[in-house]
Amino acid sequence: MPTHTFDKVPPLDFLLVPGGLGSRAPGLDPTREFVKNIYPSLKYLMTVCTGSALIAPTGLLDGRRATGNKKIWKWVTSQGPNVDWVAKARWVVDGNIWTSSGIAAGMDCMYAFVGYIWGEEESKDLAMSLEYERHTDSHWDPFAEYWGATWPLTPGAGGGDDGAGGSG
Amino acid sequence: MPTHTFDKVPPLDFLLVPGGLGSRAPGLDPTREFVKNIYPSLKYLMTVCTGSALIAPTGLLDGRRATGNKKIWKWVTSQGPNVDWVAKARWVVDGNIWTSSGIAAGMDCMYAFVGYIWGEEESKDLAMSLEYERHTDSHWDPFAEYWGATWPLTPGAGGGDDGAGGSG
Repeated sequence: MPTHTFDKVPPLDFLLVPGGLGSRAPGLDPTREFVKNIYPSLKYLMTVCTGSALIAPTGLLDGRRATGNKKIWKWVTSQGPNVDWVAKARWVVDGNIWTSSGIAAGMDCMYAFVGYIWGEEESKDLAMSLEYERHTDSHWDPFAEYWGATWPLTPGAGGGDDGAGGSG
Repeated sequence: MPTHTFDKVPPLDFLLVPGGLGSRAPGLDPTREFVKNIYPSLKYLMTVCTGSALIAPTGLLDGRRATGNKKIWKWVTSQGPNVDWVAKARWVVDGNIWTSSGIAAGMDCMYAFVGYIWGEEESKDLAMSLEYERHTDSHWDPFAEYWGATWPLTPGAGGGDDGAGGSG
């Protein structure tokens, strides 16, 4: 349940922009405006799945390394032609912007972030408590190959050419 | 957000009982009553994490093989002394009751269930779309050893002796 509107946001250190079908919905300009305006006051910005595609049109990712959902990679990358997209990555850190690949990759990205902020012991303990087997290598990404995601795009390759088919 | 009350539940094929701190809250008798009463009309009952501990006092798991959260295994098992607890398991299927281990294990259990109902191809496609690397072996469970979970309980072993410390 939403607890705040874009107009009444408390000071934020951290903003997570999720993906999902909502990231391809119409009328996202206010969302992009919000992210763009609040970014300078954030310590960290994180995206999961198509969250990177959602914010790419703001220009915040221009010239930065970033990743996103691999099943609809063509669509994701089309949202930010000036982004230095990384096709094969579980997650990517560039400055204070953390972008992760499709849905489940967000978990590994978040555990890495917890380790970065609170220490690797804390992150490991959390994962053991939640009985989660982490991928700790940000370069691990069999899904890029599976979905034919490359950058630059390979003509005729997979990766989905629109936002309609993806799951997240 | 809840959409129904226990008094106004439509016919259900499937019920998932999650865990979490709520499963150790006081006043759960109405929840247990609900699960016990609706079970005969279900096709499948699934629990995640301490969800199995939540429903164990109903007797529904008595004489059945079941599992649950490993960090607070002592507390989980104490909720159902007549359950045939399985310490080392990512998830356990006994009849039409699927119980899974701590938090993240619920994902592997659900993918296995999707495979069981809709076919393994469907489940695999879903996991590839969500960029999730499944554990497809229900016997895979490094967390049982990590938390010292055994059945019967080993005197002095770990696994947590109360419900206060667990995460899920």
